[in-house]
Amino acid sequence: MATVTLISDEGASPDVKAVFDDIRTTRGGDFINNFWRALAHDPALLRATWDRLKAVMGPGELDPLTKELIYIAVSVTNACEYCAHSHTAAARAKGMTDAQQGELLSVIGMASQTNALATALQVPVDEAFKA
Amino acid sequence: MATVTLISDEGASPDVKAVFDDIRTTRGGDFINNFWRALAHDPALLRATWDRLKAVMGPGELDPLTKELIYIAVSVTNACEYCAHSHTAAARAKGMTDAQQGELLSVIGMASQTNALATALQVPVDEAFKA
Amino acid sequence: MATVTLISDEGASPDVKAVFDDIRTTRGGDFINNFWRALAHDPALLRATWDRLKAVMGPGELDPLTKELIYIAVSVTNACEYCAHSHTAAARAKGMTDAQQGELLSVIGMASQTNALATALQVPVDEAFKA
Amino acid sequence: MATVTLISDEGASPDVKAVFDDIRTTRGGDFINNFWRALAHDPALLRATWDRLKAVMGPGELDPLTKELIYIAVSVTNACEYCAHSHTAAARAKGMTDAQQGELLSVIGMASQTNALATALQVPVDEAFKA
Amino acid sequence: MATVTLISDEGASPDVKAVFDDIRTTRGGDFINNFWRALAHDPALLRATWDRLKAVMGPGELDPLTKELIYIAVSVTNACEYCAHSHTAAARAKGMTDAQQGELLSVIGMASQTNALATALQVPVDEAFKA
Amino acid sequence: MATVTLISDEGASPDVKAVFDDIRTTRGGDFINNFWRALAHDPALLRATWDRLKAVMGPGELDPLTKELIYIAVSVTNACEYCAHSHTAAARAKGMTDAQQGELLSVIGMASQTNALATALQVPVDEAFKA
Repeated sequence: MATVTLISDEGASPDVKAVFDDIRTTRGGDFINNFWRALAHDPALLRATWDRLKAVMGPGELDPLTKELIYIAVSVTNACEYCAHSHTAAARAKGMTDAQQGELLSVIGMASQTNALATALQVPVDEAFKA
Repeated sequence: MATVTLISDEGASPDVKAVFDDIRTTRGGDFINNFWRALAHDPALLRATWDRLKAVMGPGELDPLTKELIYIAVSVTNACEYCAHSHTAAARAKGMTDAQQGELLSVIGMASQTNALATALQVPVDEAFKA
Repeated sequence: MATVTLISDEGASPDVKAVFDDIRTTRGGDFINNFWRALAHDPALLRATWDRLKAVMGPGELDPLTKELIYIAVSVTNACEYCAHSHTAAARAKGMTDAQQGELLSVIGMASQTNALATALQVPVDEAFKA
Repeated sequence: MATVTLISDEGASPDVKAVFDDIRTTRGGDFINNFWRALAHDPALLRATWDRLKAVMGPGELDPLTKELIYIAVSVTNACEYCAHSHTAAARAKGMTDAQQGELLSVIGMASQTNALATALQVPVDEAFKA
Repeated sequence: MATVTLISDEGASPDVKAVFDDIRTTRGGDFINNFWRALAHDPALLRATWDRLKAVMGPGELDPLTKELIYIAVSVTNACEYCAHSHTAAARAKGMTDAQQGELLSVIGMASQTNALATALQVPVDEAFKA
Repeated sequence: MATVTLISDEGASPDVKAVFDDIRTTRGGDFINNFWRALAHDPALLRATWDRLKAVMGPGELDPLTKELIYIAVSVTNACEYCAHSHTAAARAKGMTDAQQGELLSVIGMASQTNALATALQVPVDEAFKA
């Protein structure tokens, strides 16, 4: 039901196979989720997207679970069905508890609400907030 | 330039003043930002919004800074100008470093990009992701 | 600061002038707001947009104020700054009271919140809701 | 297919059961739609969301059907699939006619279009619109 | 699973049938996609939408395929599932190659990313960009 | 008014200066727009964003102007004020005529409208559209 067919391991070109291999090595498992199999229709876009994802979501100043929570927040606000599923699953795999998920949802709900109110009211930015 | 006038301390009704007082006590400072001064046109909405915000953003399973980062992620995705400013300022006040802000932006940018790709491709949700 | 210059009455071509005249007659006033002066760069788009707006927002099954409230709800959710201002002004001109505006904001805030929650949770549609 | 399992009546904790009971009493029926069964994973969020929804959507300055139309407008603009279904069903239950639904859609379509045009043109807000 | 039932050829009123006939003549085929069958519940909205679509997407300064690519870009950003499918199919019918689709996705992904960054950073508009 | 200060040429670190130099060489001019000066707070994000932008917007299957039109379509739908300005300016620099801009706006407006209608109606995807 994608707008392209999904690329199986058998149908993967060498360029695609190289990315699939890197995903498997990086994640330590055999599973390649459908996003990459759909993106594989354009090997250059697949490579650029995976390389950047690996760099962005890797170790840094923010811990990996925090990054996943931020990713979920953006995905939900963009109404991305696939991404809500895939990044919720990823957050669970990185240790998100039920209580943390509940708080994440509470913050997302709160922000969505006050975003709409601030926009409706066209609140002018306080001088104190300017960098 | 708001769609309502802002309520000053002098113009605040007792119900509004009670919320302003609670904001000051909770935050430990005199500053009331414009969002609350605009919302004060509807004292019941002001009260409900503030009470909920205080509950949601208070201590819990996620630390206060993580909650602010999630708040920023939602606000940016909703293109809320005021909220991008106010919650970036709030995150800084809670200790967000330049390096953390850079990673936050990187994750928001990455998620925005893959959200669009997943939606364009209409990627079907993997069985493995279903709860 | 628009991405096009605004068309003054003096700079209006006959096609543009005809639309401006119809706006003035329909609204019973001389004021032409900037939206139409910007759109006037493309007389055909100006004409199509105005004709459709006049038909949609005119008398019907829903009263004119209700239509404006719906218009505001969409505009706020789309984060359209200009539209939040112009349609709030239009709603006031059609009789929106402060109390009604407060309830409008409350509903918009509530919907924004539950929209995000339903998307985050990927709630399956109940059989009972299907047409 | 939700990102959480749905809570049945049998699986409901006392806190959840209390909210379910209130939903049934308020709505005068036995049906609990999936949104609440998903949200029930976090009893505090369930309670806060339901209490606020009941207050916001209850009797006030705007009639209940008008509130539902506004709710639909926000939900559609946020691309919330579940919410489009559930609030269209709710509006019908509150008396929305086919003709009213047609006008609602016409206003939503019109607003979506002019929102995009105003944003593309970056139309400056008229002085006359400022509160 | 639509919020309305779909109107079949047999169930079409004369007004609806006239639009269906025009769609068939214009497109040179018998197929009427579900969008029009759902919209047919409001014959006036069906007529207005089809007439405008025909005018906008017809021959002009931009070639038909370019128009479809723009349509896909908007639809994806609005997270419109149906529209992503229908306009991707339309673009293919108008000659979109796999390589063009890959570039389209790359641009959509890039724009989504920098849009989020510019909003997060609240970058002030350069004087040089003002019309 | 950005959420960060803008980095001047004098304040640029060697890593930032290298990107600024590449922007100047690639574009054949001295002007560095504010987006890059804001992004320069995170040299790694600046580098990754610029490198990707250069690759995506360069010569390919779609001509540079078509890519800019797609970029504008996404930016407008995301309500990105800065991006609407900067990419409209870029499209003009690449030869966009007034008539082409009018058609671009017409398509964006049309898509915005039918996106909302398709979502409101929750139109099921036609079998014929599936890849």
